[in-house]
Amino acid sequence: MIEGLALANDGRVYKLDGKPALIRKDIPDGKVALLIGGGSGHEPLFHGFVGKNMGDGAACGNVFAAPSPDVIAAAAKAVHRGKGVLFLYGNYAGDNMNFDMAVELLEDDGIEVRTVRVCDDVAAAPPERMHDRRGIAGDIYMIKVAGGAASELDTLDEVERVARKAQGWVRSMGVAVSAGSIPETGKLTFELGDDEIEVGMGAHGEAGIARQKLKSADAIADELMDKILADLPFARGDEVALMINNLGATTMMEMLIVNRRIRAILEREGISVHRTDVGTWLTVQEMAGFSVTLMKLDDELKHYLDMPAESLGYSRM
Amino acid sequence: MIEGLALANDGRVYKLDGKPALIRKDIPDGKVALLIGGGSGHEPLFHGFVGKNMGDGAACGNVFAAPSPDVIAAAAKAVHRGKGVLFLYGNYAGDNMNFDMAVELLEDDGIEVRTVRVCDDVAAAPPERMHDRRGIAGDIYMIKVAGGAASELDTLDEVERVARKAQGWVRSMGVAVSAGSIPETGKLTFELGDDEIEVGMGAHGEAGIARQKLKSADAIADELMDKILADLPFARGDEVALMINNLGATTMMEMLIVNRRIRAILEREGISVHRTDVGTWLTVQEMAGFSVTLMKLDDELKHYLDMPAESLGYSRM
Repeated sequence: MIEGLALANDGRVYKLDGKPALIRKDIPDGKVALLIGGGSGHEPLFHGFVGKNMGDGAACGNVFAAPSPDVIAAAAKAVHRGKGVLFLYGNYAGDNMNFDMAVELLEDDGIEVRTVRVCDDVAAAPPERMHDRRGIAGDIYMIKVAGGAASELDTLDEVERVARKAQGWVRSMGVAVSAGSIPETGKLTFELGDDEIEVGMGAHGEAGIARQKLKSADAIADELMDKILADLPFARGDEVALMINNLGATTMMEMLIVNRRIRAILEREGISVHRTDVGTWLTVQEMAGFSVTLMKLDDELKHYLDMPAESLGYSRM
Repeated sequence: MIEGLALANDGRVYKLDGKPALIRKDIPDGKVALLIGGGSGHEPLFHGFVGKNMGDGAACGNVFAAPSPDVIAAAAKAVHRGKGVLFLYGNYAGDNMNFDMAVELLEDDGIEVRTVRVCDDVAAAPPERMHDRRGIAGDIYMIKVAGGAASELDTLDEVERVARKAQGWVRSMGVAVSAGSIPETGKLTFELGDDEIEVGMGAHGEAGIARQKLKSADAIADELMDKILADLPFARGDEVALMINNLGATTMMEMLIVNRRIRAILEREGISVHRTDVGTWLTVQEMAGFSVTLMKLDDELKHYLDMPAESLGYSRM
């Protein structure tokens, strides 16, 4: 898969020699570097987001497993251009441990690293324990903002500051209609009846906050938006980016119907949408379901979010 | 769905009053217009491809049904800027009939229309009856090329010429691992055993050329590429664009593994890849499976294919 992924980048990205990591070919000298990464099985996240104004490199783990510290450290060295490296990844115990070990390895080489973990899943922990939350589709907006900032800003301090602002302002929640499978075994990540949905499940099939009977797209949108809006909380007059992410096997038709309802809710609440993304970015193999992400924006975040970007999994004019 | 789709375009596209059609807001005066369209249920195709350097408008039918002639004619009038309109759509009996009836309606208004039908599915008919073939994922490259040409070229003649070149040089073939369903009834579009695949099936589940036992991604890639390469035929020294399109519920991991094999085949055959697209553009609801598209390129087609583009379903820097 990694070989196929490197080839699909048409020469703009290469696979690190002997390691499952993808590195952008034309990283400018003197640029603050952005390294992303995590387990495989969620394609195009993370390793499909390497490119101009996106990640400079990605460290890949096995399916649903963190990349190893030596892969992360090697990828960090490959993207480093003298200005330090920002590590951006989802908040999971395995990733935290391995990326932190890589930070220690890199200290010996005098490479400065800062870490920002995506923790956007409002279903994973109460607001007062936000930093215990899992990272889900908020990853993509975080990569987009941090990728833009790392292309334009001069110091690791400044790039970290922008990424932390985005981290504080992004909220997501998902719903699963059917489970995905583990490629090695073919087993489903959880069991769900034909007439059931799991609200708030994690990106690997971690238990959500409620198992419910199947209901309409509008009713599901209402439930997700209630939780997301109350969490930051988003307020009248706020401007947001809105992402509806396909977890694998959901039809775009369903996601567009959900979008219609979400827009009605946001209009009622006096929250305006600066940009919308509806598509497939963080998957859980063939899981059917979707997540909704809202990121509150100011002029700075809007600027970085709106920059052109080029990668296999996410490109914008 | 159409309302959710219009909203997802963040003000760049509007829904035609009282009709299921989406129109780009900022169509420049004096531009040759490109109208695309077809049945719903294949999102983001077609109506997700309206935008800069893509379609100027899209006429939408019901699920798996052609748009009606009055919708097509109304959409054509809405995109027309005095230089005529190119109709670009997939070659299906219902679409052909309804788009042709719209051409007659538009003649009464003095609007010149040319028609280019996508007929890229090599499994649908032998090469000598190429114009009887169905249009599948070749649609996307055709829209990209015609959209670029319609932005830059001055006359409908010239835009038609470029679109016909692309039509002649694009070939696709698909494989289904499981069927999609019809939203109104929940019924599957065809029956397929758990251990079976259907090679060459159409975009609505039309029968393919062979029902086979499940086999490896590499073996499936070999079979598709044998048929596609022999059809044009593609020859040593050719340069191509390569699209691997997710029909709905296939994992990107599988498509990247397929990409690895396809690149080995193309290298063996002395065919170079100018650009690669791996993602979800023409779906059949939640069908699991994928298609492979190759388009032969010259400098002119490369130029239009590589132009930046902006639409909900396909954007490039």
